[in-house]
Amino acid sequence: MHIARYLYEGEVRWAVVEPDGLHRLAGAPYAGIERTGAVDALHAARLLCPIEAPRIFAIGLNYVDHIKESGSRTPEIPLVFMKPSTAAIGPGEPIVYPLEGQEVHFEAELAVVIGRRGRRIERDRALDHVLGYTCANDVSERVIQKAEMAQGALVLCKGFDSFCPLGPTIATGLDPRDLKIGARVNGEVRQASSTSDLLFSVADLVAYFSTALTLLPGDVILTGTPSGVGPVKPGDVVEIEVEGVGVLKNPVVAEA
Amino acid sequence: MHIARYLYEGEVRWAVVEPDGLHRLAGAPYAGIERTGAVDALHAARLLCPIEAPRIFAIGLNYVDHIKESGSRTPEIPLVFMKPSTAAIGPGEPIVYPLEGQEVHFEAELAVVIGRRGRRIERDRALDHVLGYTCANDVSERVIQKAEMAQGALVLCKGFDSFCPLGPTIATGLDPRDLKIGARVNGEVRQASSTSDLLFSVADLVAYFSTALTLLPGDVILTGTPSGVGPVKPGDVVEIEVEGVGVLKNPVVAEA
Repeated sequence: MHIARYLYEGEVRWAVVEPDGLHRLAGAPYAGIERTGAVDALHAARLLCPIEAPRIFAIGLNYVDHIKESGSRTPEIPLVFMKPSTAAIGPGEPIVYPLEGQEVHFEAELAVVIGRRGRRIERDRALDHVLGYTCANDVSERVIQKAEMAQGALVLCKGFDSFCPLGPTIATGLDPRDLKIGARVNGEVRQASSTSDLLFSVADLVAYFSTALTLLPGDVILTGTPSGVGPVKPGDVVEIEVEGVGVLKNPVVAEA
Repeated sequence: MHIARYLYEGEVRWAVVEPDGLHRLAGAPYAGIERTGAVDALHAARLLCPIEAPRIFAIGLNYVDHIKESGSRTPEIPLVFMKPSTAAIGPGEPIVYPLEGQEVHFEAELAVVIGRRGRRIERDRALDHVLGYTCANDVSERVIQKAEMAQGALVLCKGFDSFCPLGPTIATGLDPRDLKIGARVNGEVRQASSTSDLLFSVADLVAYFSTALTLLPGDVILTGTPSGVGPVKPGDVVEIEVEGVGVLKNPVVAEA
């Protein structure tokens, strides 16, 4: 099942995507999928970021091949950080290349959408707390990233407005342990891997974050990026694809 | 003026605190202070965390004397991080000493509450975006902090549930450039300083974060802690005091 959040006749709505249209829901899908019976036409809807103002938790260096390409050591504990909700944008919305941008990279990621709150969630029950999955682009400014991480913490390098495209929909019922994941820039394949190469699995990450903090419905966990990351520039179009989810496509534009 | 968020007859309300009681507001204070004319009795109210589910941005190593005591070098750029909203608690609520806790420290901080959204806010207009100030305790687990920061990012060490007491109220109309700030543990003074020792000022920080991200009403910026930080243990009571704001008092309890 694919769950969409979209703008329709000036109104923000949720729906299950079916071949004949958007089967409207009574509200957000976290408490349960309640169909209203109404169907909206897909062509008249504009897909939005599938989560509104999410808390975004993320991990760095979580694919073995990306650890190699970045010249880093394998983390002993998960290398985790947060991105501000204002970084989140939806499919089709522009990634704004900021004035400070020197080396802005795309990063294809599998994003986990939490459906049920929990603290100290056991690893073997972790997937029960997941509503579904979407594509993410963990856009990062590398020069700032290097300077921030040298000091031991980061916000700006991965926190610029628009630096977290998410979408196009939330796919439920997937097994996250072996999904193809990739990125294309202007149609050219730049990343091609599988979530089977994850160092810390989806279940590991849900359990890990929840040792410390209560995970809430609508929380998003980005699970790291495979090898092949690289720069983008204004005018480029980036596509992130996750098997079973779909394609998240965003243009890059210069800040005005 | 002191703005309170509180529980009254099972309802969450906002008010301006006056000698004769809580002068109830029509809603949250960000869009403007609209008094309803009703007055609630202070003794029947329970003060809540003055901001609901805030985005919490923070800075480390921002008082010269604390940089010295921690044996760190002066940061070349602000050392910034985020704390999850689930860390926020209100006055009187317990700081839960987690199972993983080995060395949990209190940190007295001046917290800035954003009132008006903005991006790329100029330094000399930054205070126009501030609604007011409150006390914060940036509770931190040092063993985890060291391990996380060695890798270049942090979440858990400062992100445990209850690791961000805020309150008791939001004080407006203060000049943040020279406010006494301190901490007491079980009545004993442990931190005593002034915001005049800040490396990056409130205006600097509002401007800095907003270079990258849109600040929103209700966002909180913690401005760093002076020297004197130290461990707490279950059974302790921590008080954070900021001149012109008041005292934020929280007991420490062991995780069940």
